[in-house]
Formats: sequence, structure tokens, C-alpha cells
Amino acid sequence: MGSVTDFRPVFFVIGILLMTIALAMVAPAIADGVAGNPDWLVFLAAAMFTLFVGACLTLVNRTGDSRLTVRQAFILTTFSWIFISAFAALPFAFSDLGLSYTDAYFEAMSGLTTTGSTVIVGLDDAPPGILLWRALLQWLGGIGIIVTAVAILPMLRIGGMQLFRTESSDQSEKVLPRAAQLAGAIGLIYFGLTVSNAFAYWLAGMSIFDAVCHAMTTIATGGYSTSDSSIGHFDSAAIEGISTVFMVLGSLPFVLYLQAVRGHGRALWRDTQVRWFLGIIVAALLALSGWLWIANDAAVDDAVRQAAFNAVSVITGTGYSSSDFSAWGSFALPLFTVLMFVGGCTGATTGGIKVFRFQVLYATARAQILQLIQPHGVVTMTFNRRPIPETVPGAVMGFFFLFILSFGVLAMALSLMGLDYLTSVSGAATAIANVGPGLGPVIGPSGTFQPLPDAAKWLLSFGMLLGRLELFTVLVLVIPSFWRD
Amino acid sequence: MGSVTDFRPVFFVIGILLMTIALAMVAPAIADGVAGNPDWLVFLAAAMFTLFVGACLTLVNRTGDSRLTVRQAFILTTFSWIFISAFAALPFAFSDLGLSYTDAYFEAMSGLTTTGSTVIVGLDDAPPGILLWRALLQWLGGIGIIVTAVAILPMLRIGGMQLFRTESSDQSEKVLPRAAQLAGAIGLIYFGLTVSNAFAYWLAGMSIFDAVCHAMTTIATGGYSTSDSSIGHFDSAAIEGISTVFMVLGSLPFVLYLQAVRGHGRALWRDTQVRWFLGIIVAALLALSGWLWIANDAAVDDAVRQAAFNAVSVITGTGYSSSDFSAWGSFALPLFTVLMFVGGCTGATTGGIKVFRFQVLYATARAQILQLIQPHGVVTMTFNRRPIPETVPGAVMGFFFLFILSFGVLAMALSLMGLDYLTSVSGAATAIANVGPGLGPVIGPSGTFQPLPDAAKWLLSFGMLLGRLELFTVLVLVIPSFWRD
Repeated sequence: MGSVTDFRPVFFVIGILLMTIALAMVAPAIADGVAGNPDWLVFLAAAMFTLFVGACLTLVNRTGDSRLTVRQAFILTTFSWIFISAFAALPFAFSDLGLSYTDAYFEAMSGLTTTGSTVIVGLDDAPPGILLWRALLQWLGGIGIIVTAVAILPMLRIGGMQLFRTESSDQSEKVLPRAAQLAGAIGLIYFGLTVSNAFAYWLAGMSIFDAVCHAMTTIATGGYSTSDSSIGHFDSAAIEGISTVFMVLGSLPFVLYLQAVRGHGRALWRDTQVRWFLGIIVAALLALSGWLWIANDAAVDDAVRQAAFNAVSVITGTGYSSSDFSAWGSFALPLFTVLMFVGGCTGATTGGIKVFRFQVLYATARAQILQLIQPHGVVTMTFNRRPIPETVPGAVMGFFFLFILSFGVLAMALSLMGLDYLTSVSGAATAIANVGPGLGPVIGPSGTFQPLPDAAKWLLSFGMLLGRLELFTVLVLVIPSFWRD
Repeated sequence: MGSVTDFRPVFFVIGILLMTIALAMVAPAIADGVAGNPDWLVFLAAAMFTLFVGACLTLVNRTGDSRLTVRQAFILTTFSWIFISAFAALPFAFSDLGLSYTDAYFEAMSGLTTTGSTVIVGLDDAPPGILLWRALLQWLGGIGIIVTAVAILPMLRIGGMQLFRTESSDQSEKVLPRAAQLAGAIGLIYFGLTVSNAFAYWLAGMSIFDAVCHAMTTIATGGYSTSDSSIGHFDSAAIEGISTVFMVLGSLPFVLYLQAVRGHGRALWRDTQVRWFLGIIVAALLALSGWLWIANDAAVDDAVRQAAFNAVSVITGTGYSSSDFSAWGSFALPLFTVLMFVGGCTGATTGGIKVFRFQVLYATARAQILQLIQPHGVVTMTFNRRPIPETVPGAVMGFFFLFILSFGVLAMALSLMGLDYLTSVSGAATAIANVGPGLGPVIGPSGTFQPLPDAAKWLLSFGMLLGRLELFTVLVLVIPSFWRD
């Protein structure tokens, strides 16, 4: 039991996850059925096939023991995202849209990682099943990453995540029961937020269908829309405002909501990660609306509205747009490139480097500079008013280095395929930070990833996976010594 | 003695440096005099003024005590580059070229930091005095940074430079005698390499004047040329080959030459930093010549020649060009952006992040990944076959973070001034890494920095200083507690 070569517990869990995904496929089948769209059959067939494979995996790999070793947890985390995307892609591949499997896989991975990059042109005329399926993938991917970040990554000590270890998270055997329990508790909050969001959207004028689809992709900071022109389609300040609020809510640590529900509401406001995050948003808002006002001659209220919505959309990695922000002039492009990297808080649905890492990096850089001035002084580094454990700064800085390295390598690889500078650079950034649209005429908010060569789509899919699982989780699997006993 | 507010020892040394620079101005005065160019008067006047100020500073600030505190060493390092640039700019400002003082300061800072970005158009018709002055600035800046990196930065523990501490380098009082001694010994080697290089250039067909000017800017990995079309002007494979070899020689640790001269020649080949550096060059050469051969349909020999010269020129931060490499197609642009960051070895004339830091970053990332797999295993990190002191990885990672942060902030600031994406991004990179040309039609190898707004030129000058002095040296000065007693 528990040797690295024992894949049974891994495939047992993946089987369960596939059955869940199969179940989820029933919803778009119903939607298409009601709308009289023949694609309902595609969803039903995909559901049955996925259910069959999932059930087989579960039955074949039963061990009656839910304990996982650390290695199995690594394998499970990465493999589950790869496998689920493979099956979630089936409806895209066989639907009326006529996507290639490459495109379908890209769309599914983009959905499940809550990235939101799309290869589909003509969303406004797409059948409801496909639209609902895209929204569902992001919604499920969102709760999936929250549970992973809270229950699994701290145990695996990924990129400084040991900062968020609890007593129980050191015991790898308990990872599955803990994950299940958290999925239950946090899932309720997640569901509640989604319903509130949908209701608000509906009040602001969306149809019920649009409201539900957008609520699912807002809370998941995913960014899939039911229209090619994204939220801009509705041209409503109220909808943009609601969207902004719920994107931010989806980017805060969900464990703090749990504490708030249990009567510790002040925990949310006392959390320094939350304060830094809101501070970054305000700074970006000021810089961007100032730029729109001064350089682009926008009216003040319009500048603030545009800046707030689009800045929050990019920082949180949602990727909605209300206009083509990549055409906002010189300053906007590097600013948006940088904002893409930020992300929200950990234990939320956002991607990117994440705010707590910037706090640790800042504390480290500050300590180092003070140390240069006072070589014999003692500088204590704190996070959330507690001393930072000594392994954390190195882990965070290692994460930052690997993040920049992966970004650079991915951008170079994309340019090898003939993509231009802005497309390569912003494409690499948007994939690794799980944002959605890139910058420029091809993959910017007004374009799609459809024109890219297949190899670029596979590379970007890999980049999304890498970013979503905080790099290390995926990269350990390519180290030969991982597989040695 | 030695309180932070005692600027006397700092200005005493700056006075001496100014007198040196004044002396150096006599050379272009003679060159212009021989050529019958009236600018010889400008150089003579600038020399006398600089000599006067330098002599005053030296006389007023004499203390009869050459000891420096750590704080004074910080102030001296940064202030000397700022002050010397201010005076070195005078001949540019008052010469026939008619540069504004902003342009003159930019050109001087670019020279002394061995960056090689230029605002001067029409080098081919420029008087010899100006051309010699540009070459001399880079040559003096080159030996200046070697001495700083060997004698001062290890003591200041800048960005992991404590790796290169020697017994004596911990005693800050001895910094000036040590610097003087090293300047003598290394200066001889530097001079010898320059003479060899000039002789080789002359044999390959350059005029004596061109050979001397280019030798000075090759060894300094500076990149100023006597022609607008840089080394491409000579259109000679031999000259490009000689240049490539001496750019590499200027990028190797000069203390190893010192050891080689003293009979430890093998030290150079055993040094892992040297091996990594050569490995990076070979990798870049293969990638780039492969790209030129396959995507740009270049002949194999031509592809290798172009790739070798231009890759080495960018990696070493020299900034010569034999053709406009920013027009080499999609892959070349991100590749050159990344190569700009690399730099050569420490204790040489190159800028950039430098190879030893990548070695430490690699060792750290590797150790972290192994630690994830074996949480209780012990991973030792080595550099040059010795264990890495425990303060080094953090310092190197902190440097990397600040480097990327400075790069991002500088790129955003440049774009605020209306520069396009490629100009902003590559301009920030080329300044901070002390390379020279940027990418694209404006500041690429076939353009100059002349069209940029003044504010951008000051920003870039600051970026060059920041990169040249390894960030921390400059940044500590803006920390209020540095100035408190």
C-alpha cells in the first residue's frame, strides 16, 4: 500500500471526479433538449461514456483505503486536471460547432483552470448547451481549485503554501477526508455566492440563462461569457458593477468566509492579504482611470467605470472585458501585462502569482535591504502579524523565479511558432496566470485563440495547467527521481 | 570619523576620480587638435573645469585617513557614477554635435555604465575627439566596474556577491587600498587585452583609430562604435570573429586572469561560472542560427556567423550589431529580450543578472523540488564545488525579484511617456541589463535613442545606473533609515 507505483487510489479518485463531470453533462443536455437543439444527444452520449469510464476506474481501483501518500497526492492533483479536461472536451468536439479535438481540449482546459481563453467564434448564436457547459466547467474548476489550495497544496508545501498549513494538513493520509469535508462546507458558500450573483445579474436586466451562466463564471473568476463581446454586450453600468463586486468576492480566501459564517466576521477585514489585494486594485484603478482620462480624453465617470471593471477583471484573472482594453494606448499594454501576473488571494478561484507571495517577497526584499545597512541587526519578517516560517521566503522566491522562467520559455516557444511579440508575450502571461484574453489584435479581448496553430494551443493548455497548479505540482512529475522508489 | 554624515572621504575619492576623467579628456583634445577640429578647445576647457572641481573636492575633503565605513562605501559607489557622468557629459554638450544636456548626460551615463545606447546620429561623420571620448568612457567604466565588483560589492553583500568574498574583503576600512591595488593588477591585464584586441582589429583591416576605439569598447563590452552601422560597417567575417572572441574575454572573471598570470591557468577552465556562460552562448547560438537557417532561409555559414556575433553581443551586453537583429522575425524578439537579461560572469565588464546568479537560482529551484519529493532529505547546494553559504540563495533570489520588478516598473513608466510596447519593454531591459540597443524600429540596432522624450532619457539613465550597480547599491540610498544614525 502506498508505494509510488500504486496508482489505484489515484485512479479511484479520478474515477469519482469523472462521474461527477458526467453528471454535470446532463445539465447542458437538458438545456439543449428544452431548446430543441440536437446537440442534447452529444451531451448525453458524452455523459454516458464518461460515466462508464469513471465507474470502471472506480470499481477497478477500489482498495477500501482512502489514504494517500504525498507522491500520490502530487500525481492525483496533476492527472485529475489532465484527465477531466480530456473528457470535458468531448461535447465540444462532437457538437455542432465542429471543433477539432485540439480546440476542444484547449477550451475544456481553459474552462476547468478558470482561465477563460476561448477558441469559439460566434458565442451569441451558440446553442444553450454549449454555453452552459462552458460556464459549468469554470464553476466546477473554481471550487476544485479552492479545495485543492486549501486541502492539498499546503501539505505539499508548494511555493510557500506551507504558510497556510493547519494542524491537520500535515498528515497526508487525511487529505481525502479533509478535502471532502472542505468541499462540502466551502461548496455551500460558493453556491450561495453564485446564487446571489445570478439574482443580482437578473435584477440588473440579464435573462435568467445569461444570469446563471455569468454568475458561475464570475465567482470562478473564469471569464467565459455567452457573447463574443463579453460583458460589454450588455452595455450596463449596473451589470459591470455587480460583476466587479463578485469578481473581487471570488478572489478572497474562502476559508475566511467560513470563519465569517461561524461568527468571526472580523477575520476578513483583519487579514493583511485581503487589505493588500484591495490596495492593489485601488492603485491599478487610479493609474488606469488617470491614463484614460488624461491620455485618452475619456470623461471622468466613464474612465473610472472602464478602468474599475477591466482592471479587476485582469487582476483577478477573470478575463471579462467591457471594451478592447488592448487598444487603450501605450501605457495600458505593459500595465495589463503586469496586472495579469498579480492574481488574487490564495484559497480562492484566481490564478497568477497571488497576493500573499508579493507580501512575502516585499518582506524579504525589505529585510535584505535593511540587513545591508545593519549587517548585525535582526530583522523579523511577518505575514498576517505572525513571523514567517523560515522555509517560506525561499519557497516563494523559488516560485517567483520558476514563474518568470516558465513565462519566458513559453513566450519564446510561442514566438517559435511565428506569433508576433505582443501575442507571444501576452499569450504566455495570460495562460500561466489563468487570465483569459491576451493583448493585441489576435488574442486580445476582441479576438480569440482560434487562429493560433495547433502546437501553440497545446502549449498554452500546458501553460494553463502549470499556472493553475502552482508550477511545482506539475514540475515535480518530470523529475526522474520522483518516479524512483 | 566615519559617521554617516561625514561625506569627506566620499568626496575626496570622487575628486580623485574627476581628476582622472579630466586627464582622460586630454586624449580627445589631442585627437581633435591633430585632425584640425575646433572641438579640441571644448575638450580642453572641460578638462580644466573638471580638473579644477576635482582638485577642489580633493583638497577640501582631505582627512589623511583612507578608511571608509560601509555606509560611505555605498554612497561613494553610487555618487561616483552620477558625478562622473555629469562632468563626462560636458564635452558632448558643448561640442559641435549640439546635444542638449539631457542627451549629453544620457550618452555619458550610457558610456560609463558600458551600456552603449546612443543618442548620436551621424557617427561616421563625427570628429575623432567625440568618437575617442565615447570609447574612453566605456573603457574607463569597464575597469571601474571590475574593480567595484571585486573590491567593493562583495563587502557590501550585494545580491549574493558575498559568494566572492575573500578574507580581506570583510574589512570595510581596507576597501580603498584594496581597490587601488586591484585596479593596478587587473588594470594591467585589462590594458594588455585591449592592446591585443586593437592589434587584431588592425590586422583584420581596421584603421588604427577605429581599431583602438573598438578595442576599448569591445573589452568593456560597451558597444559604442565609430559608425552608425556599428561593426556591420566593416562587413568583415574576420572582424566579427575577433570581436566575438574579445567580447567573451571581457565577460570572464578578471580575477581568474590574475590567477592565470600567476601560474594557475587551470582555474579558468575549472570555474563552473565560465562553463555555464560558454554553455549559454552555445545554446543561444544553436537556437538562433537554427532559426535563421530554417525560418529565414539563410545559408548555414551566414546563419552561424550572424547568430554567433549578435547573440554574443547581446548576452555579454556589448550591443554591437552586424545587422538589424530586431528584424529577424518572431522568434528572435523574445529570445533577444531574454538574452539581454543574462549577462556574463561577475567581476567582468558585463551587466545583466549574471551567470553565477542563474547557477544559484538553478541550485535553489532544484533543491526545492527535491525537497518536495523528499521532505526529510538533506539537499546540499554547491557553487564551484563548494557549499553555498546560507545567506546567498535568499540574496540572489531577492536580487532576481528586484531586477524583474525594476524592469516592469521602468517599462510601465516608459510606456506612460507614449512609447510603444516593444520600445518600452526592450528599452527597459536594455538599460537595466546595460546592453545598448533595444528592439524595434525606434531604438533597435538600426535606430537611436534620440527620438525619445527627455523624461524617458533620464529614466533610462537611472535604469542604467541601477543595473550597473546591481540595484541594491542604489536602492539602499532611498531608504530613510539609511540616513539615520
